[in-house]
Amino acid sequence: MRYELYYWPEIQGRGEFVRLVLEDADCAYVDVTREPGGEERLEAVLSGERDGVLPFAPPVLCAGKLVVAQTAAITRFLGERHGLAPSDEVGRLGAATIALTIADLVAEAHDTHHPTSVELTYERQAAAAKERASAFRRTRIPKFLGYLERNLERNGDVLVGREVSYADLAAFQIVEGLSYAFPRAMAKATQATPKLLALRDRVAQRPRLLHYLTSPRRLAFNEQGIFRHYPELDG
Amino acid sequence: MRYELYYWPEIQGRGEFVRLVLEDADCAYVDVTREPGGEERLEAVLSGERDGVLPFAPPVLCAGKLVVAQTAAITRFLGERHGLAPSDEVGRLGAATIALTIADLVAEAHDTHHPTSVELTYERQAAAAKERASAFRRTRIPKFLGYLERNLERNGDVLVGREVSYADLAAFQIVEGLSYAFPRAMAKATQATPKLLALRDRVAQRPRLLHYLTSPRRLAFNEQGIFRHYPELDG
Repeated sequence: MRYELYYWPEIQGRGEFVRLVLEDADCAYVDVTREPGGEERLEAVLSGERDGVLPFAPPVLCAGKLVVAQTAAITRFLGERHGLAPSDEVGRLGAATIALTIADLVAEAHDTHHPTSVELTYERQAAAAKERASAFRRTRIPKFLGYLERNLERNGDVLVGREVSYADLAAFQIVEGLSYAFPRAMAKATQATPKLLALRDRVAQRPRLLHYLTSPRRLAFNEQGIFRHYPELDG
Repeated sequence: MRYELYYWPEIQGRGEFVRLVLEDADCAYVDVTREPGGEERLEAVLSGERDGVLPFAPPVLCAGKLVVAQTAAITRFLGERHGLAPSDEVGRLGAATIALTIADLVAEAHDTHHPTSVELTYERQAAAAKERASAFRRTRIPKFLGYLERNLERNGDVLVGREVSYADLAAFQIVEGLSYAFPRAMAKATQATPKLLALRDRVAQRPRLLHYLTSPRRLAFNEQGIFRHYPELDG
């Protein structure tokens, strides 16, 4: 089955969590908006061209009659279908729990540069952004990373189950994204999370992911995405 | 199987989305923190007393070896297990998509009174709150409610599938919560969403839910919860 991924063409953003699963699982897929006419096709999917559930926002994954949006729902679906999730129910619910917690952290990272309105530019809300980013660096990053670290201390080399799952790929990506956006804060926070850094490194060396991460398909982080580096927000 | 729900004892909050599913599905459950010694048991679960995945925050559902946190993961699990979810995969992914979108709306509703830091009181961030709430009322409420309305226009009397699912119960609760917090904005916004209001009314009349909603188990909304009524944030 060939998947169609619909996401913005110029950023990693939330779509990257899906791309990592598709790449690591060696799924056949089209990153639709990076093809000619793709952005119009994204608009058509968002306006309900397909039968079934309407997506609120990208990323959206389609395959035949199947339409699923929301990063954590897409990665869970792909992970469970393609060997990147535990096979037992307790493990599957554990992976879903962790992936959704990482999704919350992604949303909080986004809101550091858009604390009051998604409609306005960062520059128009820079004062509130500074406040929110300060709290994010001081309390939220350590709390979330500590949470992942403690799961690794309890479970072993991976966050849940015995093999790498989509939750581990999400942990890799959140560490990468936050390290781009908040290099100073992350240099400090990750001193307390050696197991998380080791997981990040192991994930990055998985053959298919290594191939992907060094390919032109892996977009660079930038200041249109969710993880933005504004030095004034990094303390 | 008897479920244990762990959530804060004095607010509806995110726990209420879980309670509604447990009540409508007639599950045997204990709302642990409302029992003697319950808050200590919540602390124990949050600090990892149980084997398996560590929860980041309440709500947490436990049953035997099973531990699952994150509202959307819990309600999906319960819905699929107890007849409050479509039985086919396309429908299940549709329900997950909608429930996660409602979870995003819940987070945005929370951030109207806590736009810069979860550690500080509302009063300490009231200026940014006013900005965020204004954008929330003007653009986000209409966008999210319009999204639910369009799904109903496409699908019929319920959001997904042919029977009421946990996604419909979540839609009921978000309309109730937002109507408490933003009565003026909601009176205006819901003029454009007659099908959503009709769904809200039908859900409220489901016999088990009606029984629950009129019982002392249903807590009142208040200003410690996620949906808070601050008149100055309602325009």
